[in-house]
Amino acid sequence: MDTKRIGAHVSGNNVEFRVWAPQAEKVEVLLPEAHLLSPEEKGYFSARIPGIKAGQLYKFRLNGKEELPDPASRFQPEGVHGPSQVVDEPFSWSDQSWKGVPLEELVIYELHVGTFTAEGTFLAVKNHLARLKDLGITAIEIMPVSQFPGKRNWGYDGVSPFAPQNSYGQKNAPEELKSLVNECHKHGIAVILDVVYNHMGPEGNYLPKWGPYFQDKYKTPWGEALNFDGEHSDEVRHYFLQNVRQWIEEYHFDGLRLDAIHAILDTSARPFLAEATDLAHDLAEKLDRHVWMIAESDGNDPRVLQSTREGGLGFDAQWADDLHHCIHSNLTKENEGYYSDYVGEEKILDVFKHGTYFRGQYSDFRKRRHGRPYSLKDRHRLVVCAQNHDQIGNRARGERLGSLVDEEKLKAAAALNLLSGGMPLIFMGEEIGESNPFAYFVDHTDKELRTAVREGRKKEFAAFTWKGEIPDPGAEETFNKSKPQWSELNSERGKKFTALYKSLINTSKELRRRKVWNHPDLEVKIVNSVLQAQLKNQFKLSISLQSPYTAEVSYE
Amino acid sequence: MDTKRIGAHVSGNNVEFRVWAPQAEKVEVLLPEAHLLSPEEKGYFSARIPGIKAGQLYKFRLNGKEELPDPASRFQPEGVHGPSQVVDEPFSWSDQSWKGVPLEELVIYELHVGTFTAEGTFLAVKNHLARLKDLGITAIEIMPVSQFPGKRNWGYDGVSPFAPQNSYGQKNAPEELKSLVNECHKHGIAVILDVVYNHMGPEGNYLPKWGPYFQDKYKTPWGEALNFDGEHSDEVRHYFLQNVRQWIEEYHFDGLRLDAIHAILDTSARPFLAEATDLAHDLAEKLDRHVWMIAESDGNDPRVLQSTREGGLGFDAQWADDLHHCIHSNLTKENEGYYSDYVGEEKILDVFKHGTYFRGQYSDFRKRRHGRPYSLKDRHRLVVCAQNHDQIGNRARGERLGSLVDEEKLKAAAALNLLSGGMPLIFMGEEIGESNPFAYFVDHTDKELRTAVREGRKKEFAAFTWKGEIPDPGAEETFNKSKPQWSELNSERGKKFTALYKSLINTSKELRRRKVWNHPDLEVKIVNSVLQAQLKNQFKLSISLQSPYTAEVSYE
Repeated sequence: MDTKRIGAHVSGNNVEFRVWAPQAEKVEVLLPEAHLLSPEEKGYFSARIPGIKAGQLYKFRLNGKEELPDPASRFQPEGVHGPSQVVDEPFSWSDQSWKGVPLEELVIYELHVGTFTAEGTFLAVKNHLARLKDLGITAIEIMPVSQFPGKRNWGYDGVSPFAPQNSYGQKNAPEELKSLVNECHKHGIAVILDVVYNHMGPEGNYLPKWGPYFQDKYKTPWGEALNFDGEHSDEVRHYFLQNVRQWIEEYHFDGLRLDAIHAILDTSARPFLAEATDLAHDLAEKLDRHVWMIAESDGNDPRVLQSTREGGLGFDAQWADDLHHCIHSNLTKENEGYYSDYVGEEKILDVFKHGTYFRGQYSDFRKRRHGRPYSLKDRHRLVVCAQNHDQIGNRARGERLGSLVDEEKLKAAAALNLLSGGMPLIFMGEEIGESNPFAYFVDHTDKELRTAVREGRKKEFAAFTWKGEIPDPGAEETFNKSKPQWSELNSERGKKFTALYKSLINTSKELRRRKVWNHPDLEVKIVNSVLQAQLKNQFKLSISLQSPYTAEVSYE
Repeated sequence: MDTKRIGAHVSGNNVEFRVWAPQAEKVEVLLPEAHLLSPEEKGYFSARIPGIKAGQLYKFRLNGKEELPDPASRFQPEGVHGPSQVVDEPFSWSDQSWKGVPLEELVIYELHVGTFTAEGTFLAVKNHLARLKDLGITAIEIMPVSQFPGKRNWGYDGVSPFAPQNSYGQKNAPEELKSLVNECHKHGIAVILDVVYNHMGPEGNYLPKWGPYFQDKYKTPWGEALNFDGEHSDEVRHYFLQNVRQWIEEYHFDGLRLDAIHAILDTSARPFLAEATDLAHDLAEKLDRHVWMIAESDGNDPRVLQSTREGGLGFDAQWADDLHHCIHSNLTKENEGYYSDYVGEEKILDVFKHGTYFRGQYSDFRKRRHGRPYSLKDRHRLVVCAQNHDQIGNRARGERLGSLVDEEKLKAAAALNLLSGGMPLIFMGEEIGESNPFAYFVDHTDKELRTAVREGRKKEFAAFTWKGEIPDPGAEETFNKSKPQWSELNSERGKKFTALYKSLINTSKELRRRKVWNHPDLEVKIVNSVLQAQLKNQFKLSISLQSPYTAEVSYE
């Protein structure tokens, strides 16, 4: 089954089409003339059509009635509702000697293709690579690129997991995305792709028409959960496993960041997520390069990092937000919502000692005990940050920390993040002390949905004490204002922050290389609001948590 | 929190009442005069009332309006809707030197108190203990005894987890249940209690009035799932953990069998079930005797048996139905429903080799791959059977295997079960080749519910090819006909089967003591429909899977 390709693939002078439609009586491919697909085992239908080639537009027709895009479409040139396009795989890769970046050397730069540059394209990202390399970044992490409705979206409303967003391409998004990955590798930068396997976007999701991709045993915050453990779930898994395979094998990605795995409910003995990490690691071995699987999980659950052999999910790393929340609430003095759990310098101390704050304590926000302790030796596998797309964007007005606190505090945030011993992630623009917002924006073509999102957004934040207007998620202005101001790269502030980040990243790498944060003899304490860490005579750190904010590190 | 007792407890000349009511404004206890309870932390309310003693009837009044039984009532003398009764703990135990039964020596006898004897009481069970001891039984497992509606129920409709069923007592069910446990220990027999932590029965479930015991994120086959991972779940867990503690500490049970843990959905880092097994094992250490936690799980998931330290659920043993299904379908030739997956002698071979059949293969019934392999060294921790209450009772007419196949096949079933290397369980009456049914019966006092159960039952089996009438679950006759015919103990058939079981149990114990089934060098094969197992010169087994059915074992 793992080699059974879904979607459209060029094979010599033919194109092979395959789609899973277990309840269908008849499936045709329209080119635009109709060709009947033949039923195969387990509900698949396929056809081998001669005389067409890459670039060919097509739709499937289900049961002689509905004309639908291919659920495994590899390109949607006209958007989520339009026809799919046959993509040819060959690309002139020049990364044959690329081996990836070791896990303990990852310094991640999260970016959103649409707002990262004025152009908002895959190709335009290339212009920043030399600068990022110089900054010390070893990996960029790209927010989801799977086809979403319209031109503006964070990416979590994608509905076509195999198709790179049409508006991110100048001419040919799939090829240009490959070109970006290739260019990153030339610069010695790994590329991690954010993928969404926990839900589908609200517009253009035709999957339910094709088969039991969803089930109603569990709910997610975004509606029906995907079917990873019910009847026919093997084929639903196959769909997403093929997706893992596509990005790693065909697009040469160095890893995947799986969005909100805590919303993937699956009680099977062999969870889908364990299959996914095993597949990625098998591919890494086959391809002889590093491939990292990173989970976003809010569970503070060490089983995420436990090997699949030992019954865990087998991720190489996972997001751990406790440090962020500590930094944010202590610097901004915000104490609403989940920040209420993190007020107080002693919480920072706890994270610096253990990697996470919640290791089983009662959470006032969650109204229950939360988490379990991680092993000290896994400290470097916890992805930490002082800002990321979620923490910035999931505020009513999407304010970056750079607009909430002064320069000194902003520097303290950077130091706390980069010197904490976790796997540091910084968000695009953070390195110049960016103060523009990163707001929530969408571009649904469905009018009602657009209104619903706007009103929902207002309602969501009604209980908070934000003042002033909430930006309209559907307005193009909201999107445009979310772009970092790269002209500031050469401003005094921009230069100062760039120099600071460069220095901190360098120190961060050195400390991780020396494994000081994994050492059982490391002593961490707070004295007069100064966080102090010391490992015998080898390492000494002090970061002030009150004005004047300072950070000093020394090591032998 | 673990020491915060809920319910009513005699303390000197006072009775202490405590109830969790996080959304309540006011809670009173009615004796029948009202006494106000004082609010405590985390939503508890309590009062210490002097001048009353054990035997006192009471109800709680919530917010000055509804009069309700105590959710942690320790006795409901008038049933699920009636008042609760204060129970005093002291009992004249004579099992001070009892250490329990080692895990690898457990031979379990499952019984249902209501139908096990003519009297249907805890005390009447005692009359069988000498006989069971002589048979080689080392533990009885009692189907759930928590207060359920009416007088007749398998026990899975219980709504008052701390209160032994009133109709199982002659005068004082709690004391008589203790007396039964004490008597078992005198006979050297351990007692395991079946407990239901996955749902509450449909009649008399007042828990939702008290607090967020349930949540709507997950569904179970029996309605809303209990809240083990949402807001306030610490207190819901506390309720059930106190229940674990009551049965082990106060009632001296030697273990608990947790019903259908696959229906307990809980995504927390520290699952409720892991807390429950840890608590039981802590109590075992404290009490200096064996306490075993056994899961019913249909997941074929080795994480159930993995230690909590390693991220597992920490159960000592778990039900594993594959052997039953193989035995049943191969002897009866039934191939409907889940039996469709188990047709064929090679499936038996697989179970004898690996302990389970489904270790990741595709299941036609489940329409997905199922299970993961268990370690060979855990073979003796898989509870196996040739009959149990579920497999008999969840048939339209509740036919026991004894009425479906002839004597020779029935003997083969016994041999396959008892010599398979699992932890054998036999169902009451099996040892005399009982042919009476064990039907599904209820005695809901709610008329509509009674009708709904009857009609639901008919509908459930409408798709099957059962012939004839389906017994009315609500009829007393259905219950009475489900009792084993103990007069047959002295019949030729009864004696023959008793002798067979005695011999097989004895051999089973010896083989488990020698760990032949855990040995990596064990060879198992089928030759001409004879299942053969051999361990070097130490052990040899052959069981014929076709007529003439024979079983031979030899060991040195």
